[in-house]
Amino acid sequence: MPEPIIFYDIPGKDVTPKAWSPNTWKTRYCLNFKGLPYKTVWVEYPDIEAVMRKAGILPAATKADGSPYYTLPAIYDPNTKAGLAESAAIARYLDRTYPDTPRLIPAETDALHAAFNQAFRNAFLPDLAKLTIPAVANHLPPRSEVYFRKTREVGFGVANLDDIAPPGPKRDEAWAGVKKGLAMIAEWLQADGSDKLFFTGKDKIVYADMTVAGFLIWARVVLDKKEWEDLISWHEGRWGKFMAAFEKYEAVDEGEDAVL
Amino acid sequence: MPEPIIFYDIPGKDVTPKAWSPNTWKTRYCLNFKGLPYKTVWVEYPDIEAVMRKAGILPAATKADGSPYYTLPAIYDPNTKAGLAESAAIARYLDRTYPDTPRLIPAETDALHAAFNQAFRNAFLPDLAKLTIPAVANHLPPRSEVYFRKTREVGFGVANLDDIAPPGPKRDEAWAGVKKGLAMIAEWLQADGSDKLFFTGKDKIVYADMTVAGFLIWARVVLDKKEWEDLISWHEGRWGKFMAAFEKYEAVDEGEDAVL
Repeated sequence: MPEPIIFYDIPGKDVTPKAWSPNTWKTRYCLNFKGLPYKTVWVEYPDIEAVMRKAGILPAATKADGSPYYTLPAIYDPNTKAGLAESAAIARYLDRTYPDTPRLIPAETDALHAAFNQAFRNAFLPDLAKLTIPAVANHLPPRSEVYFRKTREVGFGVANLDDIAPPGPKRDEAWAGVKKGLAMIAEWLQADGSDKLFFTGKDKIVYADMTVAGFLIWARVVLDKKEWEDLISWHEGRWGKFMAAFEKYEAVDEGEDAVL
Repeated sequence: MPEPIIFYDIPGKDVTPKAWSPNTWKTRYCLNFKGLPYKTVWVEYPDIEAVMRKAGILPAATKADGSPYYTLPAIYDPNTKAGLAESAAIARYLDRTYPDTPRLIPAETDALHAAFNQAFRNAFLPDLAKLTIPAVANHLPPRSEVYFRKTREVGFGVANLDDIAPPGPKRDEAWAGVKKGLAMIAEWLQADGSDKLFFTGKDKIVYADMTVAGFLIWARVVLDKKEWEDLISWHEGRWGKFMAAFEKYEAVDEGEDAVL
């Protein structure tokens, strides 16, 4: 049995589960699906860069000004002494390093998975983010909330996150966009005339499915219950059935807070 | 041996080969790859709707005003008496109907293929079209040219197609966009750290590859030779090597002109 992998995640407050981030959820699904031992280390937003630098984990992205952008999820694997960030890179690392565990990205689908990731982001995220980003702010611990509001307000070009999609026409429009995005994903799943629940076939979950699930659980955790119930009624109840299949991979360990 | 499938394509003039359309090329690659007997029927643009109606082939798209939009490629298969349009639908039909021929879309990649198609169009087409659409107009027979210029000028919102990307900054910008789009596709192919030429692995071509090839042969047939040579020098010569692998699937039969 390998040593537990260190899994860096961002804590919420007043949410169940404590894990809420769509991108870190993808990695949690990967780890739980593979049955690999791991321990969550909770990192508040303003501390991500310092914790990553201390752990020697390189950033996976770059800010508009060219400076490094440290993001989570990230893992440190004591078995190989490798540390890396970004959910797709982590999935590929886990497949490569633990070939005896269930495969996340079947080799012949790797490039198609990369294309899927791009299409998924275009189809679904811009409108979902208008709803979930303001909701996230309300579910973060105080230091994270201040940091998150400041950076996301700049990103969206608004004075207050709550102005992005307040109840009313703006919210209705974003919500309609979320539905349209999910309709497109449902179309992909039915392209060959079958009615698959998961990307590669009837009972087999792969990374593309975990990507969709990561963003759906984000919606489930941070949005109002009523909105979530609306969502799972769409497309013949597809998304409720879809998420039910992920319940067995949703365990969140207690973990510990990052030490700076 | 099945009866020859009727394959409806759009003729060019003053181009070699006479077939130039990216979407119909995808279908020609599919037919040649599977080794299915077929006969091309050349249909000029203004005649597509009438020819499709006569053949009883339903349109695969809808115009902005909600009216049916008849497009090519389309096929009529006398073996099954099925007629259908749209390259991806045709690929799936051929896989389903001729299961003993090489598979275009491996079943477990079907939904990922659909997502790929969306990502590919976003990544690559808008800028490529700025270069190829005006070039196509110059390579169509007179009746098709008139029809094509009129409809595409409306689509692009320009008085003259030649204003879209004339030599100079506008063309340079579109060309840079084409390069960026192909760079993204190259990134998908290298996402797992390998350097695949084709989507599913080293020597196996699937429909995603034919999609890329269909659009690259479009560029090769209608653009200036110098621009094509520039393109195949990009990304360590990847696209030249890629297209070389398609040469054996590029036979164009003489066919016959559609009878109205």
